[in-house]
Amino acid sequence: MITSSSNQQMKNITALMKKAKERKSQNLFVVEGRKMFEEVPPEWLSKVYVSERFLEEPEAEQLLAGKIYEVVADAVFKSISDTQTPQGILCLVRMPQYPLSDLLRGDRTHLLIVESIQDPGNLGTMLRTGEGAGITGIIMNRTTVDLFNPKTIRSTMGSIYRVPYYIADDLAETIGELKRQKVGIYAAHLKGQMHYDEPSYCKGTAFLIGNEGNGLSDEIAGLADTYVRIPMEGSVESLNAAVSAALLMYETNRQRRRNGK
Amino acid sequence: MITSSSNQQMKNITALMKKAKERKSQNLFVVEGRKMFEEVPPEWLSKVYVSERFLEEPEAEQLLAGKIYEVVADAVFKSISDTQTPQGILCLVRMPQYPLSDLLRGDRTHLLIVESIQDPGNLGTMLRTGEGAGITGIIMNRTTVDLFNPKTIRSTMGSIYRVPYYIADDLAETIGELKRQKVGIYAAHLKGQMHYDEPSYCKGTAFLIGNEGNGLSDEIAGLADTYVRIPMEGSVESLNAAVSAALLMYETNRQRRRNGK
Repeated sequence: MITSSSNQQMKNITALMKKAKERKSQNLFVVEGRKMFEEVPPEWLSKVYVSERFLEEPEAEQLLAGKIYEVVADAVFKSISDTQTPQGILCLVRMPQYPLSDLLRGDRTHLLIVESIQDPGNLGTMLRTGEGAGITGIIMNRTTVDLFNPKTIRSTMGSIYRVPYYIADDLAETIGELKRQKVGIYAAHLKGQMHYDEPSYCKGTAFLIGNEGNGLSDEIAGLADTYVRIPMEGSVESLNAAVSAALLMYETNRQRRRNGK
Repeated sequence: MITSSSNQQMKNITALMKKAKERKSQNLFVVEGRKMFEEVPPEWLSKVYVSERFLEEPEAEQLLAGKIYEVVADAVFKSISDTQTPQGILCLVRMPQYPLSDLLRGDRTHLLIVESIQDPGNLGTMLRTGEGAGITGIIMNRTTVDLFNPKTIRSTMGSIYRVPYYIADDLAETIGELKRQKVGIYAAHLKGQMHYDEPSYCKGTAFLIGNEGNGLSDEIAGLADTYVRIPMEGSVESLNAAVSAALLMYETNRQRRRNGK
């Protein structure tokens, strides 16, 4: 049993939680909680840590059957946990790599492309909503908050395991590739002439969503085929980025559902 | 100039920021930042506090013209601020009271009713999105997070000043009154037979949104005329409450816009 938070493994978990660089170099991220543990694809699972108290729960044996795990003293577990009321189970998970082609489905392609999103909760919510709306993948640039940040992971509610993602070194270049693959690029933009529910999204479609405060950069916005506008009444100047993304992705879902696609 | 955070006024600001009870008894709430200050309806404004540094900014004189304000030493201002990088302006604002009738607009009534929402950011985002979608008001029960919590206020981005609200002592009774006023009550619910984009919302409409973890209580869900379902692909079990609310409110906006209402 691990009884000290200065144990090397505990130190490593803390480093993996706090530092994107560490996650990248070890190719691992941390997930917490029973539900997030149960949903980990088996081949992604690297190691499991449980608290003493967790081990006493009636379902513990069945949950952990066949898994490699270490027991951690309750106080130590609480000190490394990123949540206020830790559930007593935490695991290290391997990050898969998806080639861009894994996100494409011809006419059914439905992508969310985010530029420089800063709020981990917003990014996680977009992934969760995106899975619900049926996106085929999410693409982000390197200045977007790290997808494997514990807060982002938590707010995906498990969608991180199921939605293919692609982190673009050069977002403009990646969008260029999508255009060559005949994916229509739509930007939510105040300059949009059309309302967001006017174009047909029943072919390969990607939506560009920009930073919470500043929107899309001119360079990236300039690559869109079409600017669409979400109408806003009252004195509202913009919507929350995750809300805008939700409206666009679910409009696509609505159109494709109605067209039996 | 106020130079100590033990000054009575500074202590009172801290109490108003932290305690819903204090806000209620004084009928005041705190807003921070220049934009939130500029948008306060003049008759709501009770008092303004600015930091020394703010006062030196070129626009300070014009912004503060005709207002009663107190200057606060920079260090003291920073210590009372709820934000990490305070903008140097904060004000006390009177809470208006709206009778329920102020939220009703006959056939154009469009309400969001929330039960026991716990996340201040979610509640604020719903108000902001609601204003954009054209709701005529928001109704909440007493166990919803306080609307005047500084985090909620901040995430409304000013919509708090423009969207009428009603805090129901007895939510079931308020919903009963809406039904007598011929407002259709729709609950987003996993039991919904219809997709959320199937009913017509071109008459008086109210949407029920429940708590983030547990959804609507059976009592409140039981009052709905219609259960609607937001379709979810993949393994998604639910959407974020603010996202669900956005989809419902913007579906109403879409239908009314297309029908020229």
